[in-house]
Amino acid sequence: MARSNPSSSGPTGPVRLSPGARTALRPAGSADILSGFWRERRDVNARVGIPQGPVLLESAGNLHDLRLAAGLVAGEFRGDYPFMDSDVYKWLEAASWQLAGSPSPELAADVDRITALVAAAQEPDGYLNTWFQTGKGEGRYRDLRWGHELYCAGHLIQAGIAHHRTTGGKELLAVAVRFADQIDATFGRDKAVDGFDGHPEVETALVELYRETGERRYLDLAAYFVDRHGHGVLGGEAYCQDRVPLREQENVEGHAVRQLYLLAGAADLAAETGDDQLAAACERLWSAMVATKTHLTGGLGAHHDEEDFGDPYELPTERAYCETCAAVASVHFSWRMALLTGHARYSDLIERTLFNGFLAGMSLDGERWLYVNPLQVRDGHSDGGGDQSARRTRWFRCACCPPNVMRLLASLQHYVASTDGGGLQLHQYATGHYAGEIAGTRAAVRVETDFPWSGTIKVTVEEGPADLPWTVSLRIPSWSAGHRVRLAGRDLAAGPGADGWLRLERLWAPGDEIVLDLSTAPRLTQADPRVDAVRGCVAIERGPLVHCLEGVDHPGGGLDDIVIDPRAPLTEDHAPGLLGGVTTVSAAGHRRTVADPGWWPYRDATYLDPSSSPEQRHSTVLQLTAIPYYAWANRSDGPMRVWIPTR
Amino acid sequence: MARSNPSSSGPTGPVRLSPGARTALRPAGSADILSGFWRERRDVNARVGIPQGPVLLESAGNLHDLRLAAGLVAGEFRGDYPFMDSDVYKWLEAASWQLAGSPSPELAADVDRITALVAAAQEPDGYLNTWFQTGKGEGRYRDLRWGHELYCAGHLIQAGIAHHRTTGGKELLAVAVRFADQIDATFGRDKAVDGFDGHPEVETALVELYRETGERRYLDLAAYFVDRHGHGVLGGEAYCQDRVPLREQENVEGHAVRQLYLLAGAADLAAETGDDQLAAACERLWSAMVATKTHLTGGLGAHHDEEDFGDPYELPTERAYCETCAAVASVHFSWRMALLTGHARYSDLIERTLFNGFLAGMSLDGERWLYVNPLQVRDGHSDGGGDQSARRTRWFRCACCPPNVMRLLASLQHYVASTDGGGLQLHQYATGHYAGEIAGTRAAVRVETDFPWSGTIKVTVEEGPADLPWTVSLRIPSWSAGHRVRLAGRDLAAGPGADGWLRLERLWAPGDEIVLDLSTAPRLTQADPRVDAVRGCVAIERGPLVHCLEGVDHPGGGLDDIVIDPRAPLTEDHAPGLLGGVTTVSAAGHRRTVADPGWWPYRDATYLDPSSSPEQRHSTVLQLTAIPYYAWANRSDGPMRVWIPTR
Repeated sequence: MARSNPSSSGPTGPVRLSPGARTALRPAGSADILSGFWRERRDVNARVGIPQGPVLLESAGNLHDLRLAAGLVAGEFRGDYPFMDSDVYKWLEAASWQLAGSPSPELAADVDRITALVAAAQEPDGYLNTWFQTGKGEGRYRDLRWGHELYCAGHLIQAGIAHHRTTGGKELLAVAVRFADQIDATFGRDKAVDGFDGHPEVETALVELYRETGERRYLDLAAYFVDRHGHGVLGGEAYCQDRVPLREQENVEGHAVRQLYLLAGAADLAAETGDDQLAAACERLWSAMVATKTHLTGGLGAHHDEEDFGDPYELPTERAYCETCAAVASVHFSWRMALLTGHARYSDLIERTLFNGFLAGMSLDGERWLYVNPLQVRDGHSDGGGDQSARRTRWFRCACCPPNVMRLLASLQHYVASTDGGGLQLHQYATGHYAGEIAGTRAAVRVETDFPWSGTIKVTVEEGPADLPWTVSLRIPSWSAGHRVRLAGRDLAAGPGADGWLRLERLWAPGDEIVLDLSTAPRLTQADPRVDAVRGCVAIERGPLVHCLEGVDHPGGGLDDIVIDPRAPLTEDHAPGLLGGVTTVSAAGHRRTVADPGWWPYRDATYLDPSSSPEQRHSTVLQLTAIPYYAWANRSDGPMRVWIPTR
Repeated sequence: MARSNPSSSGPTGPVRLSPGARTALRPAGSADILSGFWRERRDVNARVGIPQGPVLLESAGNLHDLRLAAGLVAGEFRGDYPFMDSDVYKWLEAASWQLAGSPSPELAADVDRITALVAAAQEPDGYLNTWFQTGKGEGRYRDLRWGHELYCAGHLIQAGIAHHRTTGGKELLAVAVRFADQIDATFGRDKAVDGFDGHPEVETALVELYRETGERRYLDLAAYFVDRHGHGVLGGEAYCQDRVPLREQENVEGHAVRQLYLLAGAADLAAETGDDQLAAACERLWSAMVATKTHLTGGLGAHHDEEDFGDPYELPTERAYCETCAAVASVHFSWRMALLTGHARYSDLIERTLFNGFLAGMSLDGERWLYVNPLQVRDGHSDGGGDQSARRTRWFRCACCPPNVMRLLASLQHYVASTDGGGLQLHQYATGHYAGEIAGTRAAVRVETDFPWSGTIKVTVEEGPADLPWTVSLRIPSWSAGHRVRLAGRDLAAGPGADGWLRLERLWAPGDEIVLDLSTAPRLTQADPRVDAVRGCVAIERGPLVHCLEGVDHPGGGLDDIVIDPRAPLTEDHAPGLLGGVTTVSAAGHRRTVADPGWWPYRDATYLDPSSSPEQRHSTVLQLTAIPYYAWANRSDGPMRVWIPTR
């Protein structure tokens, strides 16, 4: 794929570090996912997900609003939000990444057509936001809390960069640059507007625009925005990331996606400026988030209300928010941290997020979406059926998530491998080719695996420096209870370092073969006792996959009364015909039989000893079947649960 | 107090059944709470709560908006909601009830002044809503989902009735009648608007207006509104009580307060019309609500988002919504059901709600409020500090709750006793006089008790028919593990019937003395296993009081790591100097010592046996002190929890 990049010999992914960036790792020079689990998901995205975009953006009004702003049609603004344009930009970004891997004249024509529409809607001075241009909103940059103007600009910039990097096309990037210049002329301590956007996103985009164009102004503007947060300019709310400066913040807070996009921008900035204090803040906040505010699925965000992170250890199940966009943003942030620090733990979280909290957001057929990703749906659940429904939906009034999934899947290969000058690091395991440059020589490996169904990963050296030892680094996931690594069929006594990397330094020859075996035996997981929501429960995991029970696999009484026997062994079974092919995990359990639920759901705590509980005396033995969480709600809309009571 | 009622010999409370109403019970003819627990709360309400109303309504803009609508001042509408007027009406209602018990020239003058302002703001045709009159909202009755015009009318009607019943004043009632007539002229199947208000309230008010005026039109209009719900006229959302007709509904749903006010109106309607199908629906929905959607505190509403009831058994702790208004509305609904059916269980829920979920909404000093009433606040909790904060607040942007508390406290005596023609029923235990009419003769009892601190209640007959047996009925609370009842010092072998009433039928003579002893020994309570949020936890209760732990009583490490030993005995101690005088409950427990919380809050379920858990091996023994829940957050804003883990 590096060969298709017209503007640079560097990688064509979403993060292209400047030559002077101070990071431990750099994205691999080229990466291709050729088959297996993620290739299948990417193919659905290419075949169904992305192509449906223009039709949906038409029916939801986004393209109409651009025509309205361009003066091409008359009428009313359609849609309820000032960020309608960003759906278009995220789709353009997704389509651009897709064009890199699989040229499609139809898709390229759609991109060109919509790019021309975006360009037509732009004001002569570069400003572009249809909500405000059409008079739906009042006055430019006057509602920074909610206006989303710079947020939209950020997505436009990322789309322009993706389009340029993958196709060489300059039209969309030119629109983005004009808007960026208008913002740069407007925002600053001594300029017309001293403030920032309540929804971060432009920060990471501006750093990338600096990387793409070499224009230092954009980096400085990103730095200004990052550090303008937290001083009460927007009223001091955590929601807008304005309660406290990032550098002083102790834990992630407020609106989860806003926080995570800001952190992605801050990590970008630290990479480009070598700002150690900012890097330390990013590390501290990532660690606090992972230790106290991350759901088992990698999902982030505890509150529906304000889409907020919530308190430490406040990790509800049925009301988990876990917005799909927060999963995308988490991958963005963690990948930048992986590059910045070189630690494997960031890619551990990426793996967990991709396989669970992220992937659940898209149906297996690529046509329906979840905005929120709960960990439990009760028997007889009802909700309003709106965007935040626990039911898969064709599109949303607030349609931020679907094109976000599309753009991450379309660029996913860029999160798999990196180089550090002395070797290649494999962060994720997906069959494909991954290459980087070592001492001026191209080094490449081929990966073959049936991961996550199998824990066996074969890495074959394809090329590399012939006369110089270099290192193949394999991430040993924290979930793996044991691993085995063989070189040319012989076991190596090698383990990971404290940073999670198993490093194999050799004089490699083409054809050298490393086989890593990770234990994917199913396991039961429990939570820290401070996670009140899941006290007395376990979850079933297998490899990187969180599993769940679905009502459809447990007919005759729903899931609310199901109990697992945590002492019985778990068994697994690969079912090629089920849900596109999944490995299911079976456990022993029973269903409490509640003859009379009673008039009042509380009672004297006489039955604390479970053996004397009336429920325990009346129960039906039941085999529990757990499917991977990402595949839930693809057969029916019944109940689901990740965490299962043990008594 | 009946003597101060100028218009009728009936009771002066919020519910005055028409002579033809078909109910099992009728409100007591007179009721006075003279001392003790509720008298103290009512005195704070009289001394601090109600008198501060005019100042707060001035500073929040409500009175300004009325002046604006009356053309008395120029300027902009103040406040963010179309229901600003209802705060004024609820305050007028509260002040009117208060004037009945304790005449105050200052308060009466405030009421007259504000009544005159309300009258001045009314349109010539009777319409009155400052939001729409001042152009803040667009067009009358065009946004029934959110406009709250009939909701405000309902509160105006209730205020007018209260003012008329307690003072004989006709001015406010006249304003209400004019508005009611305008609504009656406008709404109906064949009239200008065929619909209803998305926020019920006018229904119960119109039935009461029928009772007050004898005008059948108001009853018919209430019936029209009740039955117009659930047919999709407002879009079909549960939020607006429009998903399904009440008569077909299986469980409470949608916005909790909207649901409960609607049910109060439906119960009123069933009482006046003898509509058995509607009565059965109310009974069914009340029972489903109590069995599956009621928090231990009597609080109602599981979701912050849309203030929604949530699913059955979805009863979260820290994110319990339990709006104070929902507690008030629950008391309204339950009281109407108690009268309609004669069952004591409705007053069981009223007792639980009053002592816990309702009373927690007002600070002990009467100056600060809670809009939401969570059952847990974590160590280091942070929230946005807005209306839905877990911190007591001086007033709210959406200030529906404080005047709602004021009006219920000011009319509380009317929920204590009833008559059924054959005797008196005591629903709640509060020192005072309660009287009704039996066979044309006044019957009265005096109650003396230190309830809830003591479970001893002395009931002395003061007057009654001399030559005819009549019945004193005492509610035996479902929380009481045992009771003893004595007549003239001698034990009676009397127990409650299936409907919860202990009936003592005698030829009573003045001075006859009944002593009821209820067991208020502290107890541990657990929840149905389907209440996932509190699995593995117990709560401490004592009599009608739910207790909680507060951080301030457990220094040195917060509450997140506290565990209770459910097998150790509970002890109680009355502390006259604490929180206005409360009985505390002590339990044995310990605090887990977590040396290193770890980088990830999930781990292999190896330690399911608690005796081998590392946390259990490192813990500090601790005496737990539980205060009544209603008194929480009166000393500090620290952590709190009702449900305590048992291991």
